Parts: sequence; structure tokens; C-alpha cells
Amino acid sequence: MTLVDPQRTIRELKELRTLTADENGAQRVAWTDTWLKSRAWFESKLEGLPVEHHYDAAGNRWVTLKGASEKSLLLGSHLDSVPNGGWLDGPLGVLTGLEVLRRFAAEFSGRPPITIRLVDFADEEGARFGRSLLGSSAFGGTHNIEKDRARTDKDGIRMDEALRRCGVEMERFDDARVEQKNAAAYLELHIEQGPVLESMGLPLGVVLGTKGVERHLVTFQGQEAHSGSTPMAVRRDALAAAAKLALEIRPIARKHPEAVCTIGSVKTFPGIATAVVGRCEAILDQRDLDSVVLARMVSDAQEASRRFAAEEKCTVEWSRIWNIDPVPFHPVLLDFCEQAILETAGVAHRLPSGPIHDAAEVSRAGIPAVMMFVQSLKGISHNKIEDTKEEHIAQAVLAYDRLASKTADWISQG
Amino acid sequence: MTLVDPQRTIRELKELRTLTADENGAQRVAWTDTWLKSRAWFESKLEGLPVEHHYDAAGNRWVTLKGASEKSLLLGSHLDSVPNGGWLDGPLGVLTGLEVLRRFAAEFSGRPPITIRLVDFADEEGARFGRSLLGSSAFGGTHNIEKDRARTDKDGIRMDEALRRCGVEMERFDDARVEQKNAAAYLELHIEQGPVLESMGLPLGVVLGTKGVERHLVTFQGQEAHSGSTPMAVRRDALAAAAKLALEIRPIARKHPEAVCTIGSVKTFPGIATAVVGRCEAILDQRDLDSVVLARMVSDAQEASRRFAAEEKCTVEWSRIWNIDPVPFHPVLLDFCEQAILETAGVAHRLPSGPIHDAAEVSRAGIPAVMMFVQSLKGISHNKIEDTKEEHIAQAVLAYDRLASKTADWISQG
Repeated sequence: MTLVDPQRTIRELKELRTLTADENGAQRVAWTDTWLKSRAWFESKLEGLPVEHHYDAAGNRWVTLKGASEKSLLLGSHLDSVPNGGWLDGPLGVLTGLEVLRRFAAEFSGRPPITIRLVDFADEEGARFGRSLLGSSAFGGTHNIEKDRARTDKDGIRMDEALRRCGVEMERFDDARVEQKNAAAYLELHIEQGPVLESMGLPLGVVLGTKGVERHLVTFQGQEAHSGSTPMAVRRDALAAAAKLALEIRPIARKHPEAVCTIGSVKTFPGIATAVVGRCEAILDQRDLDSVVLARMVSDAQEASRRFAAEEKCTVEWSRIWNIDPVPFHPVLLDFCEQAILETAGVAHRLPSGPIHDAAEVSRAGIPAVMMFVQSLKGISHNKIEDTKEEHIAQAVLAYDRLASKTADWISQG
Repeated sequence: MTLVDPQRTIRELKELRTLTADENGAQRVAWTDTWLKSRAWFESKLEGLPVEHHYDAAGNRWVTLKGASEKSLLLGSHLDSVPNGGWLDGPLGVLTGLEVLRRFAAEFSGRPPITIRLVDFADEEGARFGRSLLGSSAFGGTHNIEKDRARTDKDGIRMDEALRRCGVEMERFDDARVEQKNAAAYLELHIEQGPVLESMGLPLGVVLGTKGVERHLVTFQGQEAHSGSTPMAVRRDALAAAAKLALEIRPIARKHPEAVCTIGSVKTFPGIATAVVGRCEAILDQRDLDSVVLARMVSDAQEASRRFAAEEKCTVEWSRIWNIDPVPFHPVLLDFCEQAILETAGVAHRLPSGPIHDAAEVSRAGIPAVMMFVQSLKGISHNKIEDTKEEHIAQAVLAYDRLASKTADWISQG
């Protein structure tokens, strides 16, 4: 008989939803009153547990159940949401982690063989200041304070001011790295936010890692000209070059089984009915778990864009908006995750994560990490209709608990 | 020896430019003080000529040199410009018409065999209220006052108020039709505003007519989805369908020698790097001189858009933004125009006009009409760099004068 109670986790998720959502969805945006309310509510759930808890220098909350060994198993995710978000993205991992921590406390009468630490990372979404993975990057030491502290929200409030109001001094961000001490592994349960598991009819998946991202602004420059008086043969239509690229990124991605390439934004200038497009700006986002594949896709798209520009008598320029390397998870933990899922659901599937997660920052800090995905209905997240079947949430809690046991044993054995 | 003086026309064009342009180009926007100044300047040029002149009910200025017969040859164009416009678009036709009227007055000692009337149409560009061909459509009787009077400019000023300030009561617009009386033909000289004559090395062209226009908003609806987590194979990418259409309109247009199809505006929704495009709106503008060809191109594009929507698992909707029928010019006048050009420049070329012009409204009123084009440098207009070689302007004045003579003879002969 297991000691975790998946129904309690579901009840607590619903309780948090009631407390922090309005008719448009979850409003637990980091560094806002609703987020602070969700954190206070979470603290109330710790009463009676044999734990120490505190916020680190970056606002991440750490809940520690001390074990015989100081070597620590980290469990966690984030409580913050995007505006008008869903009820599971983040809290599922934190509250499942809490349930598993309770189980360790109960099973070992308050003193497990190793230390169990639950973390609620601050500002995973970056919804207010546009800097995602804020707390976990401070923990991991990849954070760049100088670049971020002057960011402002839509009302012009500076990031460092907003954080100070919540008790976080950005000058001290680096101190969050002390929480790495004795960390031996990190486990994160999260909704998939994509359609893969649902399409395969599977509740749970082993996450191979988070894909690397290369995001570029691709600008084609042609010649603005009158739509009525400029013959087809003499046009230098920047939209035509961009349209070719929008189609070509698909075969470029499909050469690789898990890769994705997306043009999510196209802007035309002057952008009026009576003018051939003189300039067209496209944002290209490319992702893969393999950095060689990712670099190859960027170079394929650049080569194609130059070819299309030449065909359309245009020029093309690339400028990088953002990038992050792929983060593959730990091979031993991948196997534990697969076994835990097999023992719970009978079938497992390995898949990469397109979205990035706190686990990526933890892994980049050199701490063995893995994630488990639970099926998302219709692949939708960051929306009030984000949902997962309760039977799948229950399976996820059981499988994550098994993963935590296997990992704790592995840590104990050194 | 000819009695027209092309150098005077060039001098007057430059005089008007000095009077009404700033460092950004011409500012003769209809119903503004600078436009009224250009009209007052034009009136000063009529001093000493044996003419009657007045504004009609729509603000068009008519200058009448009475002849032995009341049958009238109309010469004209417009003095108004777009903001930051060029020095030739409009004034070239009005001031060349003035020069030719002077020649008729001089040659026939103030009383030519037929009546010669010069018109400066009001608000051809529609730059302030978004309604082009305003004065000529009132003259032609195709105007819809009820629809237009409540239009406002960017400062919220109503169209009927702005016109009243210039002495025009929109309630009386229809009275402008009385100016049609005895009109036997209309001739308009204009810059090409396109690259065709320059690319052929020709100064002058015979305008076959103004192309019909079909302008539609084409909306593809797919499914917004996360760029990172949505596999290529399950996407319903509205941009992909629109990109295919942006490329397909080119072979659709090229089936017909003079046709043009343009997508000048594409908008993507939500239009962010992290989302596959859920909705894509494209503005498609199609033009040809032949209404059968035009209808065929619309139906070809609609069929293609449905095919692409199906291929991309999207839907597509069409909504018409605006349309106008093709207006072919009068066959006899086309021949006169060609002869006049041949006698002046040795080579002539017939081409349609992509942009619409006042001549289209005159022709729709049943008055035989034709236009002559003079080469535009780099095909550029509606811009301060709009230009034409002075030697070509001089040839245009001579050829237009010959066209007027031939047409006057034709009218005389009934």
C-alpha cells in the first residue's frame, strides 16, 4: 500500500485554483499580490510537517525534510502562472512534490535516509518582466543581474523595485547558489503542454531534456512599388521571399524526428493594399534536443533564405533574438523515470520538451535532473481551458512518487 | 512652328512646387490651406486669357474658352497631392492643359471652332478622407454622398465640415453633373507612376484604360499552438496556407499579359515567436483591364486558397474590401493619342493604367476619354523623389497638344 494520496493533491490543486483564478483563468503572476497569496496558502500546507523552510536570495522557497545524510533529493516546480493561465502548469509539480515529501516524512518517521527538499521556484514564466526561469537561473548561477534589473513591466515599474517589494534584493541574487549545496538530484513533474501523449493515448512520458532554441529575426528587403502600376516581372517582392521561407522551414525541420521550426510572426511594410511589400520581417524559432541538429537547421534556413532572396531580387539579414542550448537530462534518472511510469501505467514513451523548464537550469548547474510529463488535453496550456484528466493526475502522483523512491535509493547508495 | 511653350509649363510646375512643397515633398492635400493656395496661384495664371471660370458644386474648377460651337473638348487633371507627394502627379495635366488652352486661344484669336474647357478636379487623391476621385465622381454622377459625408480625417474633422470651409456644400454635390453638358471628349496627361515606359526607353505611352480592381481580405484560420511542443505533423498553420497563396497569385496573374495580383499586407495572430500562427489575414489586390480576366483571377485565387486551406487543415474566408470595374478608353481617341505620340517621339506604346484616374470617372459618365502617360523615373510617385526628365515633359506637352488638335477636329466634324 502506498502512502501518497493523489486525491489530496487534486483537492489542493483545486483549492489553489479557487483562491487564485478569476473568470479568465489563473492570475498567479510572479511578484503580484495574487502570487504572494498563493505562496502564503502553500506555507499553510506545511504546518505540522517536520520541515524547515525559507526563501533564498532570489525568492525561491525551500522546504527541507532533514535526513540521516545531508545529500539531498530536490523535488519541485513553480507556483507562478502567466496572466489568464491554467491550474496545472507549475502547481502540479509543487503540490505533487509536497505529497511525496509528506510520504517520506511519514514512511521514515520524520528522518529519511537522505535529505528531501521541495522547491517552489520564483518567476518561472517571466510573464511580468519578460525574463523566464528567473529564480532557477539565480539558483543555477546562469543569471545576469545587470541585464535584467532595469527591465520594466507594462506600467513602467522596474524589476528590481517589484522584487524588493516582495523582499528580494537583486544585488543578492547570486547568494541563491548556496542552495545547490549537497543537491544530488532534481525531479520535476509537469503537464506536457503539447499533444504528443494524448495522440498516443498515454498518460505519462519520460522527458529526454529540454530542446535548445535558436530565435532569429529574418528581414527581407525588396522594393516598395505601386500594386497597380508595377508589372509582375519587375517586382522585388519581400513577401514572396518570406513566404518561400515559411514553407521551406517545414522540410528543414522534418529531416530530424523531434525538431520544430516555426515562423510565428510576419510583418509587412508598408503593409497596405496598394503597395508591393518592400520589407518583410519574420520571426523564426527553431528547436531541437541535439545541438548539432539545431545548428544544422539554422544553417539550412539561412542558406534557403539567401537563395529565396536572390530569386526574388531581395536582400536578407538575420539577427539573433535569443538562444539557449539543449539540456539533455541524466541517463540514470531517465531510466528510473521510465521504470516508474511502466510500474504505474504499463506503457512509457520518451519525448523531448519543446518548452523550457526550471529543470533545465538545475541540470545546467551540474545537478542530475529529469522531468516526467503527464498528458495535456488538446495540448493546450497558458489558457484557462488548460486541463488534464484527474485519473492521469492521480497516475502522475503515483509514478512521481516511485521515481522519487528510486532516486533516493540511488543517492543513498552514493 | 508650334504655339505651345513646353518650357513655360516646366517653369510653372517648378513655381507651384516652390509654393506648395516643404522638405518632405508636395503638401497640396485637398481641402487644406496649401491646396487653396495652389488653386489661387492657378487662378492668377488665367489673367488676360479670354476665359470664363468658376467652381462647380463639388469644388471642381472649370475654365472655359468659348468656341463657335458649344460642343466642348475637356482637358484636365488635378492639383491636389498626397502628403509628402511629388511635383508632377496631377499638376502636369492641369498646367499642360492650360498651355494647350492658351494655344487654342492664340491660334483662333479667342474663338476656336469648338469650346475648350480646362478642369482642375477636386480631391483626386482622397488623401485626407480616404475617398479618391471625389470631384470627378461628383461630375460623373457616381458619387454616393450619404456614404461619404460622415467620413472624418485623422483629427476627427468631418468631411462635410472641411468641404463647407472651402465653399462646397455636399448636399449640392449632384449639381456638378451639369458640367457634363456639351462635353464631347476628355483628355488627360499624367505621369505613368510605374516602370514600364522607362524600362522600354520610351518617353510617352497611350493609356488603354484604367484597370478594374478587386480587393479582398482573405483570412485563413488554423490552430494556435505552442511553437516548442507541437510536432510539425499535427500543426494547422494558417501562415503556411497564406504563404502558398502569396506565391500562387503570381502564376495566376502571369496567365494574362497585363494583369497584376498583389498581397500587400499580411497579419499573423497571435503573432508571437512561441506560437504557431492560428489566424492569418492577407489583403489581396487584383487588377486587369478586362473584366472577364479580372473575374477569372478572383475565382482562380479563391479556388487556390480553398485548396491550400484544405492542405493545411485550415479554413479560409473571403470578404470584399473594395472593387471597381475596368474602364477602357475610347478607341478613336486611343488612335489619335498614338498618332500624336508617333509624330512627337517616333515610337508609341499602348499600356493600361494600374492606378485609377479622374479620366475613369469621366469615361464612366459616357464621355469619350483617353489618357497619355509620360515616363516616370524609377516608377516612383507619391513621394518627393517622384520625377520625370524635363525633355520628356517637353515632349509630353507637344504630343498632348497634337492630341488636342486631332480631337478638336474630330469633334468639329461631329
